[in-house]
Amino acid sequence: MNLNITLLPGDGIGPEVLAQAVKCLQAVEETFGHNFTYTEASIGAVAMDQTGNPLPEETLEICKNSDAILFGTIGTLKYDDNPDAKVRPEQGLLQLRMDLNLFSSIRPVKIFPTLLEKSPLKKEIILGTDFVIYRELTGGIYFGEKKLSADGTVASDLCQYSEREISRIAHLAFKAAKNRKQKLTVVDKANVLETSRLWRKIVSKIGESYPEVTLEYLLADNAAMQIMLNPKQFDVILTDNLFGDILSDQGSAICGSKGLLPSASIGNDYAMFEPFHGSYTQVQGQNIANPIASILSAAMLLNHFGLNEEAQAIIVAVDKALRKNISTKDINPASTYGTSQVGDFISQNI
Amino acid sequence: MNLNITLLPGDGIGPEVLAQAVKCLQAVEETFGHNFTYTEASIGAVAMDQTGNPLPEETLEICKNSDAILFGTIGTLKYDDNPDAKVRPEQGLLQLRMDLNLFSSIRPVKIFPTLLEKSPLKKEIILGTDFVIYRELTGGIYFGEKKLSADGTVASDLCQYSEREISRIAHLAFKAAKNRKQKLTVVDKANVLETSRLWRKIVSKIGESYPEVTLEYLLADNAAMQIMLNPKQFDVILTDNLFGDILSDQGSAICGSKGLLPSASIGNDYAMFEPFHGSYTQVQGQNIANPIASILSAAMLLNHFGLNEEAQAIIVAVDKALRKNISTKDINPASTYGTSQVGDFISQNI
Ligand SMILES: CC(C)[C@H](C(=O)O)[C@@H](O)C(=O)O
Ligand SMILES: CC(C)[C@H](C(=O)O)[C@@H](O)C(=O)O
Repeated sequence: MNLNITLLPGDGIGPEVLAQAVKCLQAVEETFGHNFTYTEASIGAVAMDQTGNPLPEETLEICKNSDAILFGTIGTLKYDDNPDAKVRPEQGLLQLRMDLNLFSSIRPVKIFPTLLEKSPLKKEIILGTDFVIYRELTGGIYFGEKKLSADGTVASDLCQYSEREISRIAHLAFKAAKNRKQKLTVVDKANVLETSRLWRKIVSKIGESYPEVTLEYLLADNAAMQIMLNPKQFDVILTDNLFGDILSDQGSAICGSKGLLPSASIGNDYAMFEPFHGSYTQVQGQNIANPIASILSAAMLLNHFGLNEEAQAIIVAVDKALRKNISTKDINPASTYGTSQVGDFISQNI
Repeated sequence: MNLNITLLPGDGIGPEVLAQAVKCLQAVEETFGHNFTYTEASIGAVAMDQTGNPLPEETLEICKNSDAILFGTIGTLKYDDNPDAKVRPEQGLLQLRMDLNLFSSIRPVKIFPTLLEKSPLKKEIILGTDFVIYRELTGGIYFGEKKLSADGTVASDLCQYSEREISRIAHLAFKAAKNRKQKLTVVDKANVLETSRLWRKIVSKIGESYPEVTLEYLLADNAAMQIMLNPKQFDVILTDNLFGDILSDQGSAICGSKGLLPSASIGNDYAMFEPFHGSYTQVQGQNIANPIASILSAAMLLNHFGLNEEAQAIIVAVDKALRKNISTKDINPASTYGTSQVGDFISQNI
C-alpha cells in the first residue's frame, strides 16, 4: 500500500518520540512491502517561533494533502506560565482538529500485563481493564466563544453542543461498543448542565438503533471515582470534550506510565494519531522520554487503513521490549535504554 | 454555647446518615454542657413532592435564621433518568448555595490509617496523604446562563468568573495553605479556557501577599493523573466549581470509601456542612449506608465555632469505631452493624 503520511513533531519531547514511530513504520514498509512517504511540517511553539502562527497555512495544506497525520506533542512552559499570552502553541492543535474536522478522539485504556506492577492501583483492581474513551473533540467549551471584559475583571467560556455534533460521535461509539463488550457509558453532568441533558436525550434516542448495546449514564464526578474503584466495569465511554480530556488522562495514569497510550483523532475525511501524553518539556532532548505511546500511535494508523497484521507486528515488538525490560526510566528506573535505543529495539523486531 | 442548627435531610440516604450526626451532636451537648437546638426543613426531591419546589421559601428562611446548617444528600434516580424534567432536586442545593452565598467548599482528603487497606491505591502511594480542596461553589458553569434552542437541537452552558469571585476564595485558600504545609496548587485548564487564565492572573497577584506559600499551577487533566500517581504532593488545591466537583470525588475514592469524607460550604454569613457522597438512593432505608461522612460533617461544624475539643471527641470516637471494626458493609463486608448501630457506638463514645 502507498501512504502519504504527514509528520507533525511539535514541541517538547514530540520530535524524539515521533522519530521512533517513524523507524517502526519504516520497518513495516520493509517487512511487508509497503511504500510510505513522510512529509514533515511545523506546529505549536516551534511554528510560532518561526512564523508567529502555531498552525501555519502551509502545515494545514500538507495535512490536507496526506492520507494520515502522525502527531508528536504540543506546548511549552514558556507560554503556560504567561496568562497574558495572546497566542498559544495549543491553539495550533485545537485549530488543526477543527480545520480537519477531527470530531472524535478515540483513547483506548488497556493494561499491559507486563506492567501490572507499575500501576498505582492494586493488581486485583486493575487486572483485565480494557476500555476505550470516545471523546468529542471539536465542540463544547473548547471551541465556544471566549470573552474577557475590557477592564480584564470578568472572563467567560461558552460550552455549546448541537444535535449534529453529538449524534455523529455517538454513532461511532455505539458501533465500537457493538463490536466489543456491548456496553456504552455516557459520562456527563446532567444534574447541572443543559448540554449534558441534550447529550442524554440524543444518545438515548440513537440507542434505540443499537438494541444489543446496554446504555448507561454516569455523572462525571462519579466517573472519576469509578475509574479508580472499578475500571474493569467499562467497555466504551462516550463523553464531551472537557470531561474526555480529564478522564482520559486519569485513564492513562491507571496504566502506570503516561508514556504508553496512543490515541486516534478521527473525522469523516482525515485521521490523526498521537500519544495521550503531553510535551513534557522538562526532559526534552535528553533521550529519556518513553516512545511507546508514539509507536503505538503508528500502529493505530496502520489499523485505520486495515493493515492489521502490520499493526499487530508493532504491538508484538512493543510487548517483547517490555518483557525484556528494554524500556525507558519511567518504567524501569535502573534502565540504561534511552528513547532511541527503545525505538531501535522495537523497530528491529518488526 | 447555644447553637441554632438547621437540619436538611434531603433525599436518598440523607435522613438516615444525618440522624447519626445529630446523635453525636446531642452527645457533645451532654458531655460538654452545650445547648443546641435543631430545626428540620425540607429540600430536594422530598420538597418537590410536597411543594413542587426543591427549595421552599420556608426552608430558606429557616436556614437564614440559624447559626449553621447540617445537610444530608440530594437527588433521586427518578429525575436523573429524565432529561426533560424542568425542575430537579439538585436545583434546591444549588439555589441554597447561591442564596446563602456559600462560595467556598472545603473538602479535606485525608487517609484514615485504619483504612489504608481499603484504598484502591497501593499503600506506599496513599500513606500520608493529607490535602484539602478549596472548590469555588457559587460561580462558573454551574450558574452561568443555560440555553436550549426552541427546536431543542442546540444547548449551551456559560462558564463565567469575575475577579471578585476568584479573589475571595483565593484568599481563603492562601490562608489555609499558610497554616498547613505552605503549598497552594491551582488547578485549571489555562491552555484552553479564558476563565482559567483569569484565575491564574488574579491568583498570582494575590500570591504576592502570601510570600511564605509556594504557588503552583496544574492543568486539570494532569491533576486527575497526579491525584492517583502521587497524592502526597498536595497541600491545598484551589479550583473552580466544575473541576472541584470532579477532583474532590476522585479524592474521596482514594480514601477507599465514599462514605467517609465530610465537607464544609462557607460564605461570609452562613456555613453548611455535608458529606462528599451522594444520595445513593439504591440503598435508601436499608440501614446500611455509612454515617461517618455525615458524623464528621458535624465535627467540622463544631470546628467552625471554635469547639475544637468537641470536634476532636467526635473524631476520636469515629477512629475507635473503625479500629474496633464497628462499621458498615462498605468498609467491612462481613459487618452486621447498620447505619444506626454505628451511630450509636460513636455517639456513646463521645
Ligand atoms: C494540549 C491540550 C490542548 C490537549 C487538550 O486539552 O485537548 C491535550 O490535553 C489532549 O488531551 O489532547
Ligand atoms: C448534587 C450535585 C449538584 C453536587 C455538585 O455537583 O456540586 C454534588 O456532586 C457535590 O459535589 O456537592
